[in-house]
Order: sequence, then C-alpha cells, then structure tokens
Amino acid sequence: MAKKICVVIGSRANYGSIKSAMRAIKNHPELELQVVAAASALLDRYGAVANLIEKDGFTINSKVYVLLEGETLVTMAKSTGIGLMEFTTVFDQLKPDVVLTVGDRFETMATAVAAAYLNIPLAQTMGGEVSGTIDESIRHAVTKLAHIHFPACQDAKDRIIKMGEEPANVHLVGCPRMDLVAEVLKQGTDIANDLFKLGVGGNFDLNKPFVVVSQHPVTTEYGDGEKQITKTLMAVQSLGISAIILWPNADAGSEHVARGIRKFREHNDDSNMHFFKNLPTEVYIKLLAKTACLVGNSSSAIREGSFIGTPAVNIGSRQQGRQRGANIIDVDYDRNHIADAIKHQLSHGRYNAEPIYGDGHAGERIADILHKATVSVQKRITY
Amino acid sequence: MAKKICVVIGSRANYGSIKSAMRAIKNHPELELQVVAAASALLDRYGAVANLIEKDGFTINSKVYVLLEGETLVTMAKSTGIGLMEFTTVFDQLKPDVVLTVGDRFETMATAVAAAYLNIPLAQTMGGEVSGTIDESIRHAVTKLAHIHFPACQDAKDRIIKMGEEPANVHLVGCPRMDLVAEVLKQGTDIANDLFKLGVGGNFDLNKPFVVVSQHPVTTEYGDGEKQITKTLMAVQSLGISAIILWPNADAGSEHVARGIRKFREHNDDSNMHFFKNLPTEVYIKLLAKTACLVGNSSSAIREGSFIGTPAVNIGSRQQGRQRGANIIDVDYDRNHIADAIKHQLSHGRYNAEPIYGDGHAGERIADILHKATVSVQKRITY
Amino acid sequence: MAKKICVVIGSRANYGSIKSAMRAIKNHPELELQVVAAASALLDRYGAVANLIEKDGFTINSKVYVLLEGETLVTMAKSTGIGLMEFTTVFDQLKPDVVLTVGDRFETMATAVAAAYLNIPLAQTMGGEVSGTIDESIRHAVTKLAHIHFPACQDAKDRIIKMGEEPANVHLVGCPRMDLVAEVLKQGTDIANDLFKLGVGGNFDLNKPFVVVSQHPVTTEYGDGEKQITKTLMAVQSLGISAIILWPNADAGSEHVARGIRKFREHNDDSNMHFFKNLPTEVYIKLLAKTACLVGNSSSAIREGSFIGTPAVNIGSRQQGRQRGANIIDVDYDRNHIADAIKHQLSHGRYNAEPIYGDGHAGERIADILHKATVSVQKRITY
Amino acid sequence: MAKKICVVIGSRANYGSIKSAMRAIKNHPELELQVVAAASALLDRYGAVANLIEKDGFTINSKVYVLLEGETLVTMAKSTGIGLMEFTTVFDQLKPDVVLTVGDRFETMATAVAAAYLNIPLAQTMGGEVSGTIDESIRHAVTKLAHIHFPACQDAKDRIIKMGEEPANVHLVGCPRMDLVAEVLKQGTDIANDLFKLGVGGNFDLNKPFVVVSQHPVTTEYGDGEKQITKTLMAVQSLGISAIILWPNADAGSEHVARGIRKFREHNDDSNMHFFKNLPTEVYIKLLAKTACLVGNSSSAIREGSFIGTPAVNIGSRQQGRQRGANIIDVDYDRNHIADAIKHQLSHGRYNAEPIYGDGHAGERIADILHKATVSVQKRITY
Repeated sequence: MAKKICVVIGSRANYGSIKSAMRAIKNHPELELQVVAAASALLDRYGAVANLIEKDGFTINSKVYVLLEGETLVTMAKSTGIGLMEFTTVFDQLKPDVVLTVGDRFETMATAVAAAYLNIPLAQTMGGEVSGTIDESIRHAVTKLAHIHFPACQDAKDRIIKMGEEPANVHLVGCPRMDLVAEVLKQGTDIANDLFKLGVGGNFDLNKPFVVVSQHPVTTEYGDGEKQITKTLMAVQSLGISAIILWPNADAGSEHVARGIRKFREHNDDSNMHFFKNLPTEVYIKLLAKTACLVGNSSSAIREGSFIGTPAVNIGSRQQGRQRGANIIDVDYDRNHIADAIKHQLSHGRYNAEPIYGDGHAGERIADILHKATVSVQKRITY
Repeated sequence: MAKKICVVIGSRANYGSIKSAMRAIKNHPELELQVVAAASALLDRYGAVANLIEKDGFTINSKVYVLLEGETLVTMAKSTGIGLMEFTTVFDQLKPDVVLTVGDRFETMATAVAAAYLNIPLAQTMGGEVSGTIDESIRHAVTKLAHIHFPACQDAKDRIIKMGEEPANVHLVGCPRMDLVAEVLKQGTDIANDLFKLGVGGNFDLNKPFVVVSQHPVTTEYGDGEKQITKTLMAVQSLGISAIILWPNADAGSEHVARGIRKFREHNDDSNMHFFKNLPTEVYIKLLAKTACLVGNSSSAIREGSFIGTPAVNIGSRQQGRQRGANIIDVDYDRNHIADAIKHQLSHGRYNAEPIYGDGHAGERIADILHKATVSVQKRITY
Repeated sequence: MAKKICVVIGSRANYGSIKSAMRAIKNHPELELQVVAAASALLDRYGAVANLIEKDGFTINSKVYVLLEGETLVTMAKSTGIGLMEFTTVFDQLKPDVVLTVGDRFETMATAVAAAYLNIPLAQTMGGEVSGTIDESIRHAVTKLAHIHFPACQDAKDRIIKMGEEPANVHLVGCPRMDLVAEVLKQGTDIANDLFKLGVGGNFDLNKPFVVVSQHPVTTEYGDGEKQITKTLMAVQSLGISAIILWPNADAGSEHVARGIRKFREHNDDSNMHFFKNLPTEVYIKLLAKTACLVGNSSSAIREGSFIGTPAVNIGSRQQGRQRGANIIDVDYDRNHIADAIKHQLSHGRYNAEPIYGDGHAGERIADILHKATVSVQKRITY
Repeated sequence: MAKKICVVIGSRANYGSIKSAMRAIKNHPELELQVVAAASALLDRYGAVANLIEKDGFTINSKVYVLLEGETLVTMAKSTGIGLMEFTTVFDQLKPDVVLTVGDRFETMATAVAAAYLNIPLAQTMGGEVSGTIDESIRHAVTKLAHIHFPACQDAKDRIIKMGEEPANVHLVGCPRMDLVAEVLKQGTDIANDLFKLGVGGNFDLNKPFVVVSQHPVTTEYGDGEKQITKTLMAVQSLGISAIILWPNADAGSEHVARGIRKFREHNDDSNMHFFKNLPTEVYIKLLAKTACLVGNSSSAIREGSFIGTPAVNIGSRQQGRQRGANIIDVDYDRNHIADAIKHQLSHGRYNAEPIYGDGHAGERIADILHKATVSVQKRITY
C-alpha cells in the first residue's frame, strides 16, 4: 500500500516552497499525496492559492480555516491554537504516514504539535536556518518535534545535527523553491504587459531600471512596522527610481506596515510606484531576475536572490543570521543607509549565481527519501 | 516596579514541582508572583489542586479550563490548542515580564507557544532531561522557545547548552520538587491512620513492607496501557505483598490503564491492595520514604527516589534516558521480570541518597536568577 | 438518492430518547442514517454510550469531543462554543439533508446553530415543553432555529405553533423514549442479581420496597447543589428505606451535587444505599417499574413515570411547568416535605399509566415524516 | 452600587445601532457602562470602529477577536463558536448585571448563548422584526434567550409578546439608530469634498442626482452573490446615473459579492462610479438624505430610509417581511425590474418621513428601563 504523505500549505510562500516536492510525491509510484490547504492559502485577499493548487493538478483533501482576523500578536497566537484544533481533526481523518511541513510559520507550529500528539511522524523542510523574528524560535521548536529533516543548505544541516537530531534523519536536499525558480527562468524573464492591471498606482517601463520593495512586519519588534516601512519608502523615493511595492504578509504587525504604505500614498506622488497585494509566484521570480535591486527584509533576497544573482538590500533584523551570498548588503532601519545601499547595488548590477540553497532538484530527493525512510515515532535526542 | 513572574500550574505534579520557587518569588521584595491554575489543577477528580494552592497562601490570578474530556491522542492535541487560545488571553491581560513553566506537559507546550507569540520571555524548569513518550519531544521543543533555563541536573544543563541555548541563560539550580521533599521529610515519615479512608480496597499495616504502584500511559505506545498495567498488577499479586495502587494521570491512554485496574479488581481479591485516585503530595513523599519498593514508570522513582533512596522498579520506555541513581532497576513489560526485580529490591532495602536532582534550595535560586536576569525577546541559536 | 438524516447524540439520556427513531430511519428504504456521537456519549465515566450505539448495530460516522472539563457555568458555555466549531466541521463533511437533534442540552444548542449557519434544515424532538433551568431557554431558542418539529405531547405542540412556527411543520409524534420503555417492559421487569456489582455501597433485596434518587444540578441555581441533594438524602435516610442513588449528569454544578453525595457517604451509614454512576437504560426503565418511589428532579419521573405509573416526588424548580400526570407530588427543597411526600407515595403504590408523552410509536412516525417533509431553508415566523 | 450594563459591539453597523443607548447608560448616575468591542469592529479593513468608539469618549473594557477569516458558511458558524468561547471569558471577568446586545448577527448569537449559560440577564434591541437570511432565525432564537426586549417598532413588539415573552419585559423604545440619524441631520447634509479621497473609482458632483448601492450577501442563498450584484450594477449602469457603490459586509458569501464588483470594474467604464469599503456612519446618513435612490438590500433603506424619506429600491429576499414605509419599491433579482424601479424613484423624489422605527429618543428610554428593570434569571414562556 502506498505511503501517505500529507503536505500542509498555509500561504502562497509555503506553496512555492513545496510545490516541486508535491509533484515528485504525486508522481512517485509508491507514495500517495494528501494536500491540506489552510490559513491564508484559502483567502481571496491573499491570492486564492487553493485555486492555484487545484489548477496545478493537485487534489485538495481538506480546506482548513484557521486565521483569526486581526494580525496582532494575540490573533497570531490564537490562530495557532485554532490551527492545532483543526489540524488534529484533519490528520485524525486522513491518517497520513508522514506529515510534511514547511519552515517556521504559525501554521507550521500548529501542524507540528498536532502531528506530534497524534504519533504521526513529521518531516520539516527549511529547518536549521537562522533568522530574526519569532520564526527563529518556532523553526527550531518544530525541528525538535520533527522526525525527518530536509535542510536547504549545508550550515542548516550541521545545525540540526548539533541540536541533537539523529544524523541519519537529516538530509541536505536544497530548497524546493529553487526547483521552481530554475524551471520558471528556463522559460525566460519576460513579464506580460498587463501586469499593471493588477494592483494600484502608476505604470512604468519594466525594461528600465526599477526596484522591488518587499518588507514584512518583524513580530519581535511589534509596533514598529509603520516607522520601518516609511523609512524604506522615503529612501526609494529620494532616488527617483521606479518601484514595485509589495504588500506585507499576514504576520502580527501587518496592519502597521500596511498603514505606513497607505499613508505614504496619501502624502506622496506615487506615479512612479505600483503597489501589489499579491503576485503570482512565477511573476515574482521573473521580477527577481529583472529588478535592479530588491529592497526590504524578505528571505527571497537571500534564498532566491543568491540563486539568481539579484542585487539586494536587506534591512533590519528579520534575516539576521541566515546564510547568504555576495548579493546582499545589510543595513539598519535608516533612510540614508538604505538609500546609499540601493545606489551601490544599482551601480553594481547583477551578481554571479551561488547555489547555496540548492541546485533545482530538491523535490525529487524529498520524495525519494520519504519513500525509503523508516522512523520510530518515539524521538530521542542524540546526546 | 516589581518584575512580574507568571507561573502556570496545570496539575498536582506541576504544583509540587514549582511550589518552592513560587514561595521564593512571592517572598522576593522585587518580584511579583502571578499564578495561573489550569487544566487538571482545577478539577475535583484530580484533587482540586487550585484549592491547595490557595490554602498554601497563594492568590490565583486566573483559572483556565483547557482539558477536553476524552484522554485520547486527539483530545490531548486539541486541549493543547484550547490551552493556547486561553493562555493567550490570560497573558495578554496579566502582562507578565516572565512566564515560568514546568517541564514537558501539553499545558507546558501551550504556555510556551502563547508566551512566544506574545513576545513574553519564557523560563522553563526541568528542561534538558531525556525520557520516553511524547514528553521527550515536547520538552526539547519548549526549550527552543524558552529564554531562561532552570535544569535540575548536570547532564540536563549540558544538553540544553549543546542544543544551542546561550550558556549564560542556563542555570543549574536543582529540582524545586526536592526542596519540598526535604521539607516534608524533616517532619518525619509518619502517615496518619486515616489514609485508607480515601480510596477503595483493603486496609493493611503501613509499618509492614508494602509496595507502591504508579504507572502512567505511554502516549507513544497508545492503546497498550491496559495490557501493561495488568502485567504489573499480576506481578505484584504473585508476590503476596501489600500494595498501594495509584490511578494514572490524565494523558492520552489514561482510560486504558484505568480499565486495566478496574478489570483486575473485578477478577481478583483486592483485600491486600488499596487504590487511590489522588494523594496529597506530602503523603506521597512519605510513602516514597516508607515503601519497600516503588513500581511502575513514574519519574518520581528516579527523581525523588534518588534523593530519598527509594528502592524502585522502572518498567518500560517512559523514563528511558533519564539520568538515574543506583536505586533503579529497569525492566521491560514482562510479568516475571517485574516480579523478580521487586523481589530483589525487597531483599536489598533502602539505598543511599544521591543528590542528582538538587540539594533542596532550587526555589530560592530560581527567584534570585529571575530577579537578576535580563534577556532579549529575540532568541538566537548559538551556532 | 436516499435522504441523509444526521442524528447527534450527546449523552446516554439523548440516546435513549432517539434510539427508536434511529432504528426507524435506518430501516427506511429511502432514508440514510448518519450518526454523530459527541460529548459525554464518548466518555467511559458516563458509561461509554458510543460502544452501546455500535453494539446496537448503528455505525457512528463521527466522534466529536466537546466537553471542556470542569462542570461549571463557564465550561458549559465554552463547551457549547467548542461543539459549535466541531459540529460545523462534521456537518460540512457529512452534508446531511436534515440534522435531527434532541431536546435542550448544550450540545443541542451547538448542533442547532451549526446547522442553521450551514443552511441545513434542522429537526428537533421534545421541543415546546416547559421546565426550569437554562434548558427552558435553550429549548425554545433551538425551536426558533428548527424547521421540523416533533413535540412529544399536545401542549408542547400547541406551544410551538403559538411561538410562530409553521403548523404544517409541527408533528405530534410522542416521545421516542416511550417506544423504548414499552419495548423493555414487554420483556418483564426482572433485574439481574449482579446489578450491585456495579456502583458502590450496600446491597439489598430489590423485591422489597426501595426508592430511587435521581437529582441533577439546576444551572440557574448554580452553587446550591450540595445543599439540595443533602436534604434529599437526609429525607430518604430518615425513612429507613433502601435506596438506589444515581450520580448527577454533567451539567454545570454537577460537582456540587457529587460533593454532597460523597460527604453524605463519609458521615452516614450507607449499608442500606447503593450508588451508581451510570445504569444501562434498560435497567433504569425496569427500576422505574419496580421502585416504590422515584425521588429527585429527573424529567423521567414525569415522562417515563406517567407512562409507567411510577409514584414520584419531584423536588424544586427543574421540572416546573412540564405537563405531568397524577403520579407526581411536587415539593420544594425541604427535608420534611420531601420525607412526607415519599411516605405518601409509599402508601399509595403504583399509579395508572397515562400516555401523555406518547404511545410507543414515535420513532416510526418521525422516520415517515422526515421522508415526506420538504422544507425551505429560509425560515419565516408565521405572524 | 451602580448596575453594570455590558454592551457588545461587533461591527460598524452595530455601533451606530446602539451608540445613543451607550451614551445614555454612561450618563446615567446609577448605571455603569462596560464596552466589549469584537469581530469586525476591531479590524482596520472594516473601518477600525474600536478607534471611533474611543474617540467618542467610551472606554473599551475588552477587545475580542472572533472572526475566522474566510467569509464562508463554515467560517461564520465557527466564528460564532469562537465568539462563544471568548465572550464567556469576558463576561465571567466583567461580571455585568445585564448584557445588552444588538439584533441578529452571529456575534449576537454568541453573546446571547454565553450570557444565558452564565446566568446573566440578557437585553436585546431590534428583536421581533422579520427579514430574510439566517438573521431571521437567529433574531428570534436570541429573543428566546433574552430577558429584556427593546423592539424598535410596534409590530416587532407585538410579535415578541406573541412568541411567549413576558409583556412586562417588552418595551417599545424605537431604534437607537434613529437617535443618531436625527442628531446628524440636525447638523445639515453637507458632505465634505474630500469624500472621494477614500475609496476608488471616478469622482462626480454630489449635488447632482446619484444613487447609492448597498447590497449584501444573502446567507440562505449562498453562492448567488456574484450574479445578484452584477444584475444590480448593470441596471444602474444602464441608466447612466452616477453611483456610489458600497462594499458588502462580512457575512458568508461576502467574497462572492466582492468578486462581482471587482469583475464589473474590470470590464466596464467606472468613471461615473465610486467604490467604498467603509464610510463613516455620519457620512452614510447624509448620503441617505441626499441620494436620489438607495438600491440594494440593506435594512437601512427600510429603517433609516423611512425616517428620512429616502427613495429606495429593495432587491430580493433579504428584507422580506420587515415592516416598511411608502419609500420602498420591492423587486426581484432582475436587471430590468431593478432599472425600472430606480427610474420610478428618480422621478418620484423624496418621500415624507414616517417614524416607524422610532422618534429619536430610544437611547434614553433604554437606559431608563435598564435602571428600573428587575428580572429573574430563570425565564419562563408565558403559555
């Protein structure tokens, strides 16, 4: 009987980070894929990712609403609690042999605890990395609940083993997201002209230099988001360059960042800027390949950025500690420092690609290992 | 302004394991104690621990019901989710400077995640130890969410540091439970004659040799509890020795163990056995000092047992890996092995005390360190 | 395609009150029965009703844990909230054509609101009756959410129509519980000698006069339960008659009544009394046919009691307003009044049966009507 | 000691419907106002009503997040369950003497059940009215849980009494929303020029004829929202008149209506239309006084509309049965019928005011009655 692998997808970012593994699992003759779509992956205002999943040919076994509206620290914690209750129901019904979860989000935490108490082996991708925000703690806590580990880079693998996980269960596979990046870029970097029909703000020529701003709330600096994004937007504006501005994710403090963007728009000429709530992953990858500079605190600057060679300015503490390539300039929350760093990247141009986070074949490796792996439900620290 | 330390108590065992620290915090001039009583600590059928807490002179700031009845894997997972929702409400209102949590229970997991997402520093006692059941995973996951660590023994301290926690935040203080043990035994080991008014079954002379059986469900061996306890009870019966049998805790599988006890009573003469649902902690400690042998899988055999010198037979995987003294004989779930090991302990008699889990001053140390500690909310793994 | 009828069972009492309808639905060629077992129906300490359901040949489609332990007003309210979340998941999956719910319990409220918001037509049994406690309000609120009504007695039917429900959807069918009573009594009233193996307390001869005490907490008089049961027990004791005492149900305040029973046992000779946590429904029905007097505030005194002719003393407000037969003497919470009323019933002996709550064919009628009924999801008050 | 009245506000509409009563309670020397802000009242994307409440000088005692994102039937039901859990916590802490709730929303249902199980008397405004959608059932169910009734119109009062509520507890006070309308209109109907800075779409002259479209999902016709709004928008467009289009509320199906609006904008010239997610209540009232015709299915057409004399076209079943004045033309979901009805209203012009829903003094009456009222927690149907 096929081994049942249950993948939980909680957001658009999640989906991009696991899609190639899902495909490989689905195509594997001795694995059966179960898909749970949850949290912002179900919501129109986050791009209705569940529809994409189905359009991509996957069957969703269960749709689970867990997001308590509010985007505060309190609602993030309570959403985790709701998720824990709901995922328990789902896993109890689907009875997977392994639950596969991505990274370090609150849905990940809920998924991990539910699987743990139900005695279902847990596999985690993207474990062992270092960053700022609460994600840093959650990521390692999930690792301590996981039985099979799929780190994306070498130092993450080393770190997981140091944390006391059984080396035989730690598999350096690369990040499945790079599989997707490689695939998309094979098709070229042209972006259809009608991009600007989505979003609001001015239009501009995507063949001339432009920056992309992607800045999310830092949960451990809750309350500072409006101030932080404002500095970034003012730095970008001061350079007179066209800019694509992305809306923040749904973490606690999201409303503060959003408010900063709204106020900036009210008080400034935005004819040179275009604002998007969501972008198809394929379009976002192409933008990373085209943009003169990626600005903000998205992990994509470091992960996809190193793979593609995207010049990037990384602001503040959110990505602190994450293994990175030459394409990153780190700056603090200072308008002038941000502007100077962007200027430097504009004059530098594209970087050489560095395969820190994988070679584009992570998905197949994950399916293969899941097929072969036999783990004991009873975990045991190695020291 | 006094630093607010919020202690969450989820069960009778929890309370015994933190009481001396609570007293030290309460008595510290620059600390303010907040007490949250939750889960089985509120329930009459688990001994109404909340009443004890108040009788001991503590004020309970919040009572939180989180136990979803059923004692299955599903209800344990969902209770964690409910706990996460409810503790979030409580911490958001009490606004503690530090949340102090005990060990590795599902309430602990819920407490830890709630504090983490609310950016409240977390302190954990009993971290870094090794055992069986899901507790093993939960304990280490909580450690990865905690900012201040109070391990009870040296190897637990070493392990926490190896896991990547900042050494400056890892404090070997001993187990506060030993503070309580030391204090109780100073008053002697006499047990009032009316003990047998509680519980059901036969009466016997506590000044003649008797064993104590304390065997809990092993969550990772869910479904085997009835079989496991039955072997133990048959082993004890075959020796013809008087026995005190304790009811299992509220973990998943509790009903299976309870059923085993009930069926044993229906089909066997129990005039030589007495069964208790709950015992006051003080009485339990005195029993450990008097019993000819403690049988089962309770951590108290290893922890209090080493401190007191109690001969003990530890059955199965639940305590696997926990640092232990000479007083323990480990056996598997085998009726004859259990009987032989008990016989050996009966002929051996009491062991010398070993202070593996502390010297009786853990509580004061914890209060002192909590007073002095300054930690960053943003955690960071050390490697 | 068969019409799917989903029955939600939340307790032993619930099951007895709907079992004959379940059987009729199951046997109906054009109906498909779905069974949801929930709340105390899943718990060993309330008699593991789910096992009975399966032993009776029904398939349980979903088991839903909703009871937050504590038995306080707070946990009763929160259990309703948990039930609402969980039943929503279940109904969304089972997609029944009609949800059939019993009476006025908190599970009933949760069931009704879940079905209402999911646009699933709701049928209610036992609506339109009058009683005390919060059940009075809940019963009528559920009626206002229900599309099809199965009142058990004439005045309940009249009341439902007066409340603005469409007369065509109000069907006087009798109480399905009477179907069960009729069936059981057809087999005689002998009770196996081993009854006293269950429960605790003394044994006595069931062929000599004995009373049965069944007294539940009154939620709207929360906190008074201990005092109330104590008066009853003292009244019974003063008469020197043998007594079977039943444990209270799981409503808020249950612990208070239980405490009253425990304290009474500690301070009084109970050799003439036997205490049961649960009794099989069949045994309970036979006891109603044998007992010299049923004492307390159970609705069974009024409902089954009128059908069987059981002499009964009804205490306090819990059954206030419920249509009743000649077999009932109503008294307040007064030890002497209770004792006098019992004495009167002992000398009176059995009453003539009155078919107020049905003729023993309710189940078939319910199945038949559910088959024929077509209702609009959009309800509309008639005036 | 002042009597504590706890008002729960779950949305902007809720607040407008109770604000004058809150003010009167706050100003009453023997009443103490407690305010709970919940659900969409807390969310920026629904206009951050909590901030308004505080700006208006009220203190919010508790903020309660209950909205599970998704706007489906499932999330509406589950949000009710979450609300029930959370309001229970809040009421248990605030210990109000009376809970005052508005109307028939899912927060209202959750509020009512929580208060009921906690034995706290409940007062309801807007009970006894008739409408379509699930609100019809919820409204009457809440009435059966409420102890004090504040109907807004005569037929609602009659209906509540017919439903079996104690006449002495049913007080015809009018709708507090009319108090607000009267107050706002006293200040004139000028709308500041910068209105169009909010929202998206074209600008136009508010002193020339324009219509206002306010159309919400019908929960009992879940799935039809996109089709329904599209017909309305096409009807309006065919008339070539300027239009203000309001975003739908957060009920199940909201996303469908929103999608209809978004698609309409993509495929049609919207230079003559302006779209608002939220409008300050004061602005909305002035629009009702200025617009040539209010189109859609909002209750404000009937309630405020009759008070102001606003010509209105009411579409479909949502307001079916609600007592209405001469200002309403009812039509079904038919593009031509809608267009014809609007044309008729444009040529008719404003109507005479009809005080069906109050005279502008409801708030004071409510405070006064709450002060004097003494009710028994134990409800009892009158027949």
